[in-house]
Amino acid sequence: MIEASPGTPEFDVDELAAAIDGCIDCEQSCTACADADVAEPDVAEMRRCIGLCLDCADVCAATARVLSRQTRYDKYLVQRLLEACVRACSSCAEECERHAQHHEHCRVCAEVCRSCERACRTLLDAQAFEEIDALRGG
Amino acid sequence: MIEASPGTPEFDVDELAAAIDGCIDCEQSCTACADADVAEPDVAEMRRCIGLCLDCADVCAATARVLSRQTRYDKYLVQRLLEACVRACSSCAEECERHAQHHEHCRVCAEVCRSCERACRTLLDAQAFEEIDALRGG
Amino acid sequence: MIEASPGTPEFDVDELAAAIDGCIDCEQSCTACADADVAEPDVAEMRRCIGLCLDCADVCAATARVLSRQTRYDKYLVQRLLEACVRACSSCAEECERHAQHHEHCRVCAEVCRSCERACRTLLDAQAFEEIDALRGG
Amino acid sequence: MIEASPGTPEFDVDELAAAIDGCIDCEQSCTACADADVAEPDVAEMRRCIGLCLDCADVCAATARVLSRQTRYDKYLVQRLLEACVRACSSCAEECERHAQHHEHCRVCAEVCRSCERACRTLLDAQAFEEIDALRGG
Repeated sequence: MIEASPGTPEFDVDELAAAIDGCIDCEQSCTACADADVAEPDVAEMRRCIGLCLDCADVCAATARVLSRQTRYDKYLVQRLLEACVRACSSCAEECERHAQHHEHCRVCAEVCRSCERACRTLLDAQAFEEIDALRGG
Repeated sequence: MIEASPGTPEFDVDELAAAIDGCIDCEQSCTACADADVAEPDVAEMRRCIGLCLDCADVCAATARVLSRQTRYDKYLVQRLLEACVRACSSCAEECERHAQHHEHCRVCAEVCRSCERACRTLLDAQAFEEIDALRGG
Repeated sequence: MIEASPGTPEFDVDELAAAIDGCIDCEQSCTACADADVAEPDVAEMRRCIGLCLDCADVCAATARVLSRQTRYDKYLVQRLLEACVRACSSCAEECERHAQHHEHCRVCAEVCRSCERACRTLLDAQAFEEIDALRGG
Repeated sequence: MIEASPGTPEFDVDELAAAIDGCIDCEQSCTACADADVAEPDVAEMRRCIGLCLDCADVCAATARVLSRQTRYDKYLVQRLLEACVRACSSCAEECERHAQHHEHCRVCAEVCRSCERACRTLLDAQAFEEIDALRGG
């Protein structure tokens, strides 16, 4: 799909595809994990996990959509959104990892979050953002 | 992820997974296709395609989420939403097919829409809805 | 915003605006109610409410977006989506009403859901759908 | 709705409500503006506007949802997401302002974006983030 667009991608096509896939998988996994958390007998212990999963699903959904609009318009927005997405994924993964031993859905969800986090970090490190970082003095 | 949930799925696990995957692929494909349409030189001819792709992406997004909440609560809602999703996918596929020869993204998007349409229809035909259809006299 | 569009609306402008407003209010209310449910001491009693609120938020979000695309393309889709939205709102309202006496957020959320349900029903009854109903034999 | 939650808000209730309202209004306005842009005779001049409106709608949608989950869990995520939202709104407003004289929907949309931008900036300046800024050395 990415290669069929008339736009000129500012990212490596494989890295962009990995980030989009990471985000849509993570949205699904977090939606399902929050739902499973609610159904668990120890739901009262899973409150933080539910909240972080729901937030992560929403941020991943927005990130997947913005990245899918390849005829890129606003690099600063993409950078900030990727930073929010990396944070959402790492927070959610950290919490899910705490429950991974007793809840299989948390174990799977943590892996999916980590994978999305990595793919978004890879894009953030891409050349496309170097000039912004230079301007920021970062 | 589906099998890790404490809920008892009312659908065949493979069929449910196929519908969820179909919806999230279709949301992505339609988002990207609408964006590519806007960038095409013949954008004025692509207006209907843009609108149908954007609608389809939103309906697929909602359907993927509701289906991902496996601890199912409201079968009637699922049925109506699947009916809306089937319609969104078939309308969008029909329009994309008209542009498939000159726009590769439309050719790919039409295939993804048809695949999602089939997966949602399979769920609609499932046993879980038979009693509703009986009540409806359908 | 509706009147500024170059499209010719198929609905009464006030009724359309009421349905869009109803959906976006309901998405927000259901998102907040699900979050509040999770934080309640009796979270284990609120499971069904959480699930119905999350589903309702997602369906309302999609409906608000499709209705906001006024240069209308697919009346059948709009009709089916409104039917799904009416169902999501009425199921969620019914459940929230059961908790209205002990949870203020459920009381408020039930009212917002009922209001959205009414606004969507009004659109469904509109002239625009009469020919579809005739074709359906309904 | 905010006051009915069992959570302890970390933000001023009125400022939080203003940001949530700003985001949901902006999502709606940007969705409608993109749709109207596509229908305009000068659609080829509106490409950038369509893309920025669609991105802004998606980022505002995610921000509204995360802010609506008041039983706040991850301040860093909220901060980064607000930064992305401020950027999305200001980029979109800037572009819509360029078309405000000939497209009424762009004039209205620019105002709604600016209002959302202001409400999100107010939250970003709130005390809740001061400690994060201190840690960041900012």
